[in-house]
Amino acid sequence: MARSSERPPVERRNRDDVVLATAIAVMAERGYSATSVQEVADRVGVLKGSLYHYFSSKEELLFRIVESSHLETSAIAEDVAGLGLSPFKELLEWLRRSAVWYLENRERAAIFFTDRRHLTGERRDASNAWGRTFEARIARLVDAARADGEIRDDIDPRLVARFVIGTLNDVRFWPSRSGKPFTTEEMADALVLLTRSAVTP
Amino acid sequence: MARSSERPPVERRNRDDVVLATAIAVMAERGYSATSVQEVADRVGVLKGSLYHYFSSKEELLFRIVESSHLETSAIAEDVAGLGLSPFKELLEWLRRSAVWYLENRERAAIFFTDRRHLTGERRDASNAWGRTFEARIARLVDAARADGEIRDDIDPRLVARFVIGTLNDVRFWPSRSGKPFTTEEMADALVLLTRSAVTP
Repeated sequence: MARSSERPPVERRNRDDVVLATAIAVMAERGYSATSVQEVADRVGVLKGSLYHYFSSKEELLFRIVESSHLETSAIAEDVAGLGLSPFKELLEWLRRSAVWYLENRERAAIFFTDRRHLTGERRDASNAWGRTFEARIARLVDAARADGEIRDDIDPRLVARFVIGTLNDVRFWPSRSGKPFTTEEMADALVLLTRSAVTP
Repeated sequence: MARSSERPPVERRNRDDVVLATAIAVMAERGYSATSVQEVADRVGVLKGSLYHYFSSKEELLFRIVESSHLETSAIAEDVAGLGLSPFKELLEWLRRSAVWYLENRERAAIFFTDRRHLTGERRDASNAWGRTFEARIARLVDAARADGEIRDDIDPRLVARFVIGTLNDVRFWPSRSGKPFTTEEMADALVLLTRSAVTP
């Protein structure tokens, strides 16, 4: 299984990135099961055999896509945690920045939600562990903000945390910029405003 | 394409229902692309050829699943519209009853969200038209409730409507009853309470 600590040298990484970006486009369009490594190779402009030099299988491609989403959204959470905000402000700032990421990475978000279930074995375990870490982080923030009196106490905090995650998960379906009057920032701000009103006492 | 006005007689419909329930279980587990008509036939306990007596193709099976979800959720909306409530109360009652449906039909909801995109031609057109009708109904309720002063006017009503739909769409990921302390009603009530607070002025 690919790990950040075992990353290949720069030149190879660049080709990896091209393959990954192409796989993201193909999988977002067709779904994992209907994606063929042949089509990814054709679009990259290499032979199928060459592709297997970079990725051992279609499942590894999917795993790398899910891994990249995890790494980038975790980095957002870490950055926000480093700002020294109150738990409630941290929760809202995490939500705003994450919403921007989802809106700017709709294809990866789509693959993450619809195709992650096709991972097996160690890769599935890793993906599930990331999901649990993510949910535990939000649950901790909700609990801390609730202890500060900034989150309503008439609803079980587990359901409040799930609601917040849910509002974020849906943002990838919000109107896309093409032909619509909303910018990414306007949508992220609206999401934060609505969710904030939902969860405050 | 199957239509309610062209429904087959009762005995055949019963077999249809068994095939449909089995297809829902298999597709929710494997996803549309990885589902084989052979496996559905095996689980129903008939030959593959017999299955094609009831459904012309795997895509028709998918269509019938999506259609059944559409018919049942539309019936909920119609029932609530018949209660003579104010637009805001109608919106919240629709949300509560729909949340219960999603929580009680998680498999169909999962297929609806992840596999609807595999429909083609007329079937895709029908599915897209249902989606537009659904969204237009919620947009109308939000606009009417906003005109009554019951929905906040500091956020574009299209984003408010999308937010409400989004909170509902996520509810299928909320904790399942097995081993968790929440009943379907508790979760639906929490969703309505949170969404209500989000959208009111």
